[in-house]
Parts: sequence; C-alpha cells; structure tokens
Amino acid sequence: MSLEALLKPRSIAIIGASDNKARIGGVPLELLVRAGFDRVHAVNPKNETVQGRPAYKDIESVPEAVDLAILAVSAEATLGQLERCHALGIPAALVYASGYAETNEPEGQARQDELVAFAQRSGMKVAGPNCMGNANFTDAIFTTFGQSFQPGEPAGSTALLTQSGNMCATVFRMARRAGVTFSQVINTGNEATVDFSDYLDYLAGDDATTSALCYIEELRDGAKFLAAARKFRAAGKLLAVYKVGASEKGAEATRSHTAALAGDNAAYDAAFARAGVARASELSGLADLAYLHTLGGKIGGSNCAILSISGAAGAILSDALSLAGGDVPSFPQDVQDGLDAQIPGHSMVSNPVDLTGNIVNSNNFLSECIKLALQPDDIDVLLLYLPGAFLTSALDQVEKAAAQSGKAIIVIDTFAMADRERLAAAGIGYFDDFDRAARAICAYGQWKKAGTAIAADTSDTATWPEIAADRSALSETEAKEALARFGVPVVEDRLVTDAGQVREAAEAVGFPLVLKLVSPDVAHKTEYGLIKLGLTTAEAVEEGYADVMAKAQALPGVHIEGVTLEPMLTGGVEILAGVTRDPVFGWMLTVGLGGVWTELMKDACHALLPVDAQGAEAMLRSLKGFRLLDGYRGAPKADVPAAARAIAALGQAVLAGGDMLREVEVNPLLVLPEGRGAVAVDALVLLNGQTENGHD
Amino acid sequence: MSLEALLKPRSIAIIGASDNKARIGGVPLELLVRAGFDRVHAVNPKNETVQGRPAYKDIESVPEAVDLAILAVSAEATLGQLERCHALGIPAALVYASGYAETNEPEGQARQDELVAFAQRSGMKVAGPNCMGNANFTDAIFTTFGQSFQPGEPAGSTALLTQSGNMCATVFRMARRAGVTFSQVINTGNEATVDFSDYLDYLAGDDATTSALCYIEELRDGAKFLAAARKFRAAGKLLAVYKVGASEKGAEATRSHTAALAGDNAAYDAAFARAGVARASELSGLADLAYLHTLGGKIGGSNCAILSISGAAGAILSDALSLAGGDVPSFPQDVQDGLDAQIPGHSMVSNPVDLTGNIVNSNNFLSECIKLALQPDDIDVLLLYLPGAFLTSALDQVEKAAAQSGKAIIVIDTFAMADRERLAAAGIGYFDDFDRAARAICAYGQWKKAGTAIAADTSDTATWPEIAADRSALSETEAKEALARFGVPVVEDRLVTDAGQVREAAEAVGFPLVLKLVSPDVAHKTEYGLIKLGLTTAEAVEEGYADVMAKAQALPGVHIEGVTLEPMLTGGVEILAGVTRDPVFGWMLTVGLGGVWTELMKDACHALLPVDAQGAEAMLRSLKGFRLLDGYRGAPKADVPAAARAIAALGQAVLAGGDMLREVEVNPLLVLPEGRGAVAVDALVLLNGQTENGHD
Repeated sequence: MSLEALLKPRSIAIIGASDNKARIGGVPLELLVRAGFDRVHAVNPKNETVQGRPAYKDIESVPEAVDLAILAVSAEATLGQLERCHALGIPAALVYASGYAETNEPEGQARQDELVAFAQRSGMKVAGPNCMGNANFTDAIFTTFGQSFQPGEPAGSTALLTQSGNMCATVFRMARRAGVTFSQVINTGNEATVDFSDYLDYLAGDDATTSALCYIEELRDGAKFLAAARKFRAAGKLLAVYKVGASEKGAEATRSHTAALAGDNAAYDAAFARAGVARASELSGLADLAYLHTLGGKIGGSNCAILSISGAAGAILSDALSLAGGDVPSFPQDVQDGLDAQIPGHSMVSNPVDLTGNIVNSNNFLSECIKLALQPDDIDVLLLYLPGAFLTSALDQVEKAAAQSGKAIIVIDTFAMADRERLAAAGIGYFDDFDRAARAICAYGQWKKAGTAIAADTSDTATWPEIAADRSALSETEAKEALARFGVPVVEDRLVTDAGQVREAAEAVGFPLVLKLVSPDVAHKTEYGLIKLGLTTAEAVEEGYADVMAKAQALPGVHIEGVTLEPMLTGGVEILAGVTRDPVFGWMLTVGLGGVWTELMKDACHALLPVDAQGAEAMLRSLKGFRLLDGYRGAPKADVPAAARAIAALGQAVLAGGDMLREVEVNPLLVLPEGRGAVAVDALVLLNGQTENGHD
Repeated sequence: MSLEALLKPRSIAIIGASDNKARIGGVPLELLVRAGFDRVHAVNPKNETVQGRPAYKDIESVPEAVDLAILAVSAEATLGQLERCHALGIPAALVYASGYAETNEPEGQARQDELVAFAQRSGMKVAGPNCMGNANFTDAIFTTFGQSFQPGEPAGSTALLTQSGNMCATVFRMARRAGVTFSQVINTGNEATVDFSDYLDYLAGDDATTSALCYIEELRDGAKFLAAARKFRAAGKLLAVYKVGASEKGAEATRSHTAALAGDNAAYDAAFARAGVARASELSGLADLAYLHTLGGKIGGSNCAILSISGAAGAILSDALSLAGGDVPSFPQDVQDGLDAQIPGHSMVSNPVDLTGNIVNSNNFLSECIKLALQPDDIDVLLLYLPGAFLTSALDQVEKAAAQSGKAIIVIDTFAMADRERLAAAGIGYFDDFDRAARAICAYGQWKKAGTAIAADTSDTATWPEIAADRSALSETEAKEALARFGVPVVEDRLVTDAGQVREAAEAVGFPLVLKLVSPDVAHKTEYGLIKLGLTTAEAVEEGYADVMAKAQALPGVHIEGVTLEPMLTGGVEILAGVTRDPVFGWMLTVGLGGVWTELMKDACHALLPVDAQGAEAMLRSLKGFRLLDGYRGAPKADVPAAARAIAALGQAVLAGGDMLREVEVNPLLVLPEGRGAVAVDALVLLNGQTENGHD
C-alpha cells in the first residue's frame, strides 16, 4: 500500500481552508505557504481569497490535478466531500474531523463504518478521521493543524508515529530538546482505513528515515505490525516503541479513549520481543533512543565499562545499569593490571574504575585508560563520568579515544555544562542524568542484541487426526495421541471401559498409578473429583473406578468413554506449557513452573509462535523458578533440553492445527532428571466447534 | 553534640590559605570574603598577604578567638595543626586532606585512627577528613573548596547532606535547576568523628531547614540515624534519601570507595521504612522531593485525581503512578455525575477524566471540574495535564481552584512552556515529564502517609530462663519453652530419654506424630536425618527412635538429651519468622511463607524491631504469596491475626533476650484455619556463647 500521495504529495487542496491562521482550516495553509510549498489550493465556498491566495468555491474548481485533499470540514460534510474527491481521481485524503468511533456512540461508529466502506469501495487512501495530520520535514510538506511543527526546523532522519495528537506534539518537543531532528511526523488518528502498520511499512522503505519513534495505544493487525517491524530490522533501522496501558488503570483509560479494546499487555510484550523493537519504559525514553541511534553503529549492546572521577558515580551508574537490565562486567586481569599501572594508589580498576584526581595531571592518562577499558570483547559501551570543568579540560583526550575506537563512548556530565556540539561532532554521546542514561543505553543495547524472528519450521509433515467440526474439546487420550504425532512425549495410558477389566489393566500399568475419567465433555476433571492419584493396590483402583464412574454419570449430558490408567511418575519437576490465541497477535505460548506458586508469583514467560527448542529453553531459563530445574538444593538437574524440545513440538502442533484449535495446554509436563526426558502427563485440546453439553 | 562552631562559626581561620583563588586553600577564602564574611583569617607561613589580606605565619598568631579552623594542609601536617588548634581552645575543625581510611591502605587507616583518638581526647569537633567542606547559605558562610556553591545564590530551606563530594555538587546543581534553594550544603567525607547522623541531628533542630536531601553510601550507627530521623518526623520536616548500592555491582563499587563494608540492602530498606524517610529511587528524584515539599502541607498522599485534555496523557499518568506505587481511585458516582454534567459528550469521568476540547470554551468549566475531582476524601492530589497554550489560557481558573483547595494541584506541561513563577506564586506544582512527576509524587505521598515508629512494648515482664554463658544454641525444646514465656504459641511435645518409654509416650501424643532428636549441639536436624515425620504407628515410632539415636550417637561430641514426640499438625499454611542482627541497625525481623518458593522468589518482608501485631500483619499482607493465607482457591482462610500475634511475641522475646542472642527463628509457624490459631512447630535459638562441639 503506497502512501506516497498522502505523505509526499505533489499538490494539495485544503477543503474548508480558513482565513484565520490559528484555526484548524487555516494552520496547514499557512505552514505550507511559509514552507515554500506552492501547489496548495484553498477551497472555501464563502471567500474569494483565503490568506491572500485565490480560494476555489469547490474541489471541482481547483485548476490542477490534486494528490492529497485535506478535509477541514465537519464530520457530517466529510463523506460527501470524499465522494467528490474520488470522482475527480484524487488518490488520497486526510480527515481532521472528530465525531467518529472515538465518541463511543453508535452514531459515531456508524459514521466510521460508512467511511471504511467508502475507502474500500473507492480505493482512496483516507487518513484519520480524528487525526492531526502530518509534518514531512524531509520535503517541507506540512499537512497538520498542530502548531508544534514549524517550517525551518532542521530535517533529520527520525520519524515519529503516534496514535494520539497530543503525544505527537509532546514526543516531538521532548526529542527536539534532546537534539533529535525529524524526517516525518505522523499522527494516525482513528486509523479507520490507513492503519499504524501501513505507515510503519512506508517508513521502513523511506530513504530519509533511519529510525522511528512510536507511541502505541493498540494495534489491530498484529501480523502486519510484525511484518513492518521485520523490514525495519532488515534495513538496520531502529524501531522504538512506547506502549501505554501497562497498568490496569492505564489500560482502562486507553480503552475509553481509543474506542477499541486495548490488547492484552502480555501479548504486546511478547510481540515486541518477537519483533525485536526497542522498548522505552517511559515516554521521554523514546527521544533518548533516537538520540543514541544517531551515534551510529557503535553501540553493540548494554555491557558497559565505567570510568569515573568519583567512586560514588561509578556505584550509582552500576546500580542504574543493573536495574535497567544492563551489565558492568569485571575486566580481565591484564586490563586491570594495565589500569593499575596508569592510576596511582590503590584505586578500583575492576570496573567500575575510579580514575581519581589523577585525571587533571597527565597528558595521555585518560585516552590510555579508555583504550584499556574498551579492549575486552564483552564490553559494548564506555561510560565516562566527568562533570563540568573536568570534561572540558579532558575533552581532547576523549575525542582522541573516540576517533580510535569502534565502540561507543558516552559521557555523563551531571553539571550539564558539556559542549554538546563538540561532542556530537566527535560522535561522543552525552547525558546529564545517570538513570536516564542507563535506561536508554540498556534499551538500545538490548535492541541491538535482539535476534531476528524465528521462521516456522515447515519441514514437519505431521498432521492432526480427523476431528468432527462440531466438537469443542478432545478427550485427554485423544489430545495426547494428537500431540504425540508432532513429537510431544506423552505418558502412555490404558483405556478401561468395563469394571471387569480394571484389575488386569492396573497390574499391567504398575503401581502407583493415576486413574482419570475419559470424556470429551469435561475439561477440568480435578474440580469434579474425576481424577484419582497415587493408587497403590488393585482394590484401590477398582474402588476409584466405581467412584469416578458414579460421579461422571451424575453429570447431565456427559458422554463417558471410560477411564484411563497410567503410571504415576515421580522425581521430576512439573512445568506447564500452553498456547492461547491473542486477538491481535495470534498464537501465544506460555511457559511456567507448575503449581500454585507460579500463579501467585506470576512467574510465567510468554512468546509468540513459532518457538523453536532453543527459544523454548531460553523461556524456561528466564523464569525466576528456573533454579528448580537446575539442580536446586542438591536435587538432580532436570532434562531441560528435552522439556524445550517438547515445548517446541507443542508449538508446531498448534501451528499445524490452525483455526480448528482454540487452546492447547500440557499441564503438567513432567521434566525428569537429566538424560531421562520430559513427558506430558496431561493434555488439553480445546476446539472451535461447539457441542451443547460442554463442561469446560 | 552541637555543631554550631562547625556549621555556623563566628570566626574562621584557614590554615594553608592560598593566594590562588582556584586552589583548595584559596577557594574558601575567596568565597567567604565575597560573601561578606569578615572574620576570616589566612594562615600561611610563606606569605605576608594572601588574596590581598594579611596572612599570619601560624594559627597562634591569629589575633582573635577562632570558632572553626579549616585545615587546607597535607594529611601529614594535619594532626600537628589540630593539636595546636586545640591548645588554643578552638572548638571545631574541618579537614580537607585525603590519605586516610579511604585509601584502603594500612597507613591511611592508622592515620585515621590517630585522628579519631585525638578527637576523643580533645573533644574537638573534627569534620572530615577527605571532605569538601560546607556551604551555609542561610548565614552566607562558605567553608568549602567546591566551586558549585556561590555567594549570591538565593538561600532556601532545603539542606543537602552527602557522603560524596562529587554527588554533593551534582545534587545541588540538579536541585537548583528544579528551582530548589538551600539552607545548608554539607559533605561529610570520611566521618572519622563527626558522622552523618550528627549532622542530621543538627539539621533537625536548625530553624532555617525544613527538609534534608541525603546521599548515603553507608551508615555506621543505625540507632543514631533512626533517632535523628524521628526528630525530622516530629518536626514535620522532610527527610529524603537516595542510597547507592541497590545492585551487587553498585554495592561493590561503594565498598571500595568508602573504605567500609556497605550495609546489607535489606536492612537499609527496613530502616528507611521504619524511619519514615522519603526514598528517591534515582538521584534526580531527591530534587523533586524537595521541590514538592515547598508546596507546603497540601500533598496528603499519593492517591491522584487526573484531569487531562488528552485521554492518552491520562492513561500514561495512570500507568506511571501505578508503577511508582500510587493510585488513581475511581470517583464516587455523584462526582462522576457532576463531571458528566460539565463535560459534553460521552467522555471519561471515572478518573482519569478526559476534559476534551471543551477546556477552551467555558469560563468556569475547569475550576468546577477541579473542585469536583478534589471532593472525594480518598483523593490526595490533583494532576492536571494541560500543555503549552492550553495551560496559559486556563491559568486563571487553575489559580482560582488552587486558592480554594486545601489539597495540592500539580500541573504537567510536556511542552515545557509554563510560567513557572506564576505557578509557584499560586502554590501550584509543575512538572514537564509524566514519569518523573509520578515517581516524585508517589515517593512524597508515601512519606506523608508513613506512620511514626512503634515504641517497644515494655509492659511485657516475661524473662528468659537462665542460660549458661558458654552455650551456642538452645535445644528445640528449650527454645520453644523460652519463646512460650513471651506468648509464642508452641506445639507441646513429650521428651523421651529411653527406648522403653517410646510406646506409651507415642500413644499419649497420638498419631500421626513427629519424632525429633533433642540436642543443643545440632541446629539443622533435617540434614542429619534426625527428624522423622508422619509416623502413624507405635512400631514406626520405636524404629524411628532407634534410628535417630544411632545416627546422633555417631556424630562426634554431640550431647544427646533424648527425642521429642509431638503431634503432626495438618491443614494449615506454613510460614517462617526469624530475627537476625544487622551490624548497623540491630534486630531485623524477616517474615516469609515457608518452603522452597519463598527463597526462589525472594518473597520475604523485613522490618526492624520492635514490631507489634498490627505491623506483623502488615508484613504478612505485603507478601506476594499472602493469598495462600487468605483462602486461596477455596481453602479456608488462615488465622492471620494469630500468626501476627505470634510474630510480635517472637520480636518481644528477642528484645528481652538482648545481647545474649545471636539469631532466633520459628520455622515453620503453622497458621491454622481462622479461629484455630497459629503454632510454632519448630524453633531455633542461637546464642552468642561458643561451645566447642557446635554443629550449627
């Protein structure tokens, strides 16, 4: 979908152009004219001239072909004007009017539905409604009524893309204060037809743009977003995102604001991780990410060397980096020895390094120390704390070191006295605050280190069994059989359909064993008392059979297939792995340790499918409770690679099942000691069919 | 300890005064003279004049009584000069020199030890060494060689107290940029004799000071700090703290920097909570806390009403407040109805409130909305998002609302265009960043809501039994008996010392039961196989007795008193409560849910003693796993009040035991269902005596 006519129009008509340069219909005309954009035409039925230019009584009277119509008219008048624009062959329009879906009223929703239908019918690119318009600094084209964007601002290579007009102006001003310059500023509005990811896709291909800052409230099409994000990564462009709605209150406020359900935050987190975007944890962080990107390719990650003239600053920075997810790796001994030789007295040389007052004395002292600190392979960035006059007097040496280094040097001056232009010219980064610097560097470094998306493994030729379209769930036995086809290891069980078979089957399985009802209609068997654990004698199994069957028969309309007997395994660690479908981003895998504590502590990890075994292992390792799998308190280490393979196989099974499936869970997946594998003890497959008697 | 002579001297001598106004010995003279402080005397054996003033060849030649001697001489020369000052009756001195304990070398430590001995012997108040001196803006007295502090800066009511010279200058500059003005700026240095809490105590009584900002690396005397903090609270003064060393790397860097072991972070957290100080999570937050304190008493807590002209801003602020620990309570229905009547269309009125574009139209619209939003009792602060021109045009109404309200109004203008002087004059707060505002308001509101310290309950007349001074631990039976004296409910057990008694005792206790070795010499019995759980028959108890005795007899030098039998309780939730002694802050209580997950998830709560039952219950409720005690998944609710009483009794027991004790733990404390109490199943009392055969 090319947005050229919308974002880089050669000619523009403003329908509802105003003589008043401060009004919505007046601002864009004034901006365009001041920016030297000549092919702009005012349409106003009441005036002969607007802002000293000829005004045309209607769009039909405009004397040349128009690329973009800006509609500065009421919501009521908008659709009629759009029809007329379309009749003239105008390919793109921008609708300022509010009064659409954002009102949360049926009338507004109906008006938006009509707009969508028009756009689909006509093929016109219609931006908005309820949007503020855009500012193309690259080509000096202003289609916005926002007064924050002025001709004459220097053009740059950062794009700004926001779902709120106010935050568009806010982030723009914050970033400008941080010295960031822009290629494009875009406010998406209601995104009735042209949506967030359409713009993102355009920016991925825009030569003038090397990074995009995004303010996101909600995305509607997760796949389109991920595809656009992939283009950013492939092009080496930074995609930085701030997503509002991390708290319940925030999400609630967003819902009412955008007239659409805010997506589940876990799914957004998983999607942003999958897309490899840079996350800003606060709005002002977006500007800092763009700023760091302008330092070029010198920041490889968030492992920092810290040189400081104050032990306190080294400690504060270490704290701040740790909190933000970065690291301050200890230097290898040879680097420590080298620093020790440079710095008199018993100073700290392991990282952070306390340079002490020596900084003012020696000619090459600082550049030598920087060179040493940047030597280790596991150091990505050098942070240098030199406030005020210390920095001024040592700047020559920092410049010298920067010129010689392929890694980034970032200076922190809490006195805020640094010569920023000179630093920028030398490609040296600069912050005046410890924590802000640490957050930005860590977010940027993590973005740089993020892997590219995993391709789905399509070599797997396994298929699901035939399943009747009206079913809402598989029985446990069916579920395990189906998952086993894809390589999920399962506990083998024996089906018993008659009381007379119980004793023989139990003895064949061995003790202790587990007895479970088999029925496609009951999903949560524990709650109904339809599972018996740890039966140790044939008599106990017979009693259990009678009890479970009696309970099941008492449930109305439940089809009973029998019970299964299976060995009760011990000595492993229970985990759970499940896949649910997020309305925006699709299949999302959740992995956690089993039991009540995982839920209490919210210790779970989420990822979008596909996930391969390596990715599944990384998910397990990210759990706080991972140590339980890793030989905790003298227990044997669990077979984590086998668990990871089982989880990856579960993911493959779900992708192969596709739309037929609603939710698939293995709980517990018992992870046995190293070398002994992992095995699905129970499995749940919910389907999209609907049976009348479903008890799930 | 009055620090008047040090911080508010009437006359000063500078020993080592320099003609060079940029050198350490030259700066304070230049500052004092420029500030109009006449009674300053330069001591310099080589010059006739210094900076155009007469110089005296030695301190004995200074022609008047001196309150404070500033020593700008080498570490080697310092002690001799101090002796001479003392001989002259000079009551206070300030030592700039480094080369003391901060070097981490024996020579420096020895030099500091000598300095301490001198100060104790002489009674002189000696600040430093290795300190930067102070700036008393109230009285325009500058004893610092730091160049950040200049005469002519406006004096204010905020004090700054730091353990790093560099951070002193940094926080001062940050706070000045935020508009904060200062009464005193103090850099403590090595605190060889005058320590952090001495200064704090002075500031608590300083009429010119209403708040103190503290940069802390480590405290040496926790009790003194807590006492000074109590004085701050009693005087309604703000005590705001930033503590470095939250991360392992940060703590490591501090250790090497301050030449002393950094205190345990959990103990600092507990102490700051007990002291009711305001915590800044980042250094720049200190300035914001001081700024908020200047708004006076209008901020009662961190429950915020949010009015915004942008739904996005409302959501962002809600997120930021939630993350920072604040709240955005929904308005009662009558307030929502009132707002609904004010705001046309279906806008959000529940909190946050979207004011919509209506803000520009109506005369009293905004002040009416503010009045409504501040009505509910559970609202402490009003946050108003009005950027740029919106704020300018509505400022009259905000001023009107502020004049009528006893609660604080804080404006956020992300365009950073606000008229700060006009806002300050009206007592209206101002920030230009969402997250920074949220963090500061929450930290300040939490400080305001923090309770005062609990006094120890001295009415308890229970006492510990006589214990031989050389013992290192009590037996479990002794421990439980001792704790029971203080009201800790314990499981009653029966001591068995002979195989022939086992059967009768077991039947008296009832089954299932627990059998444990009784020995003062073995602390961790589970690891040695000296505990048998869930014995259900007399035979099993007899076998268990034989096995445990055999194992215990195999341990070298262990005194065996027998075994205990006690009922095995079921159906409750296990928690642990223990008290350890922190070297800085003394007795610290730790409460957590039992089992491996608490340790894995680090789900524990710490508090300094004394803790009463109310405090203990609050600790339990703060645990992430508290829901397990609160009727999780249909289980009966546990008797939390009984558990809290038991924990408080444990604390009383420890305070009564005092120096005899090393560590006391109840693990598990079994919390039974509501109304059935809580009971200590096992208890451990470690003593400060030392026996040769201790196995703990």
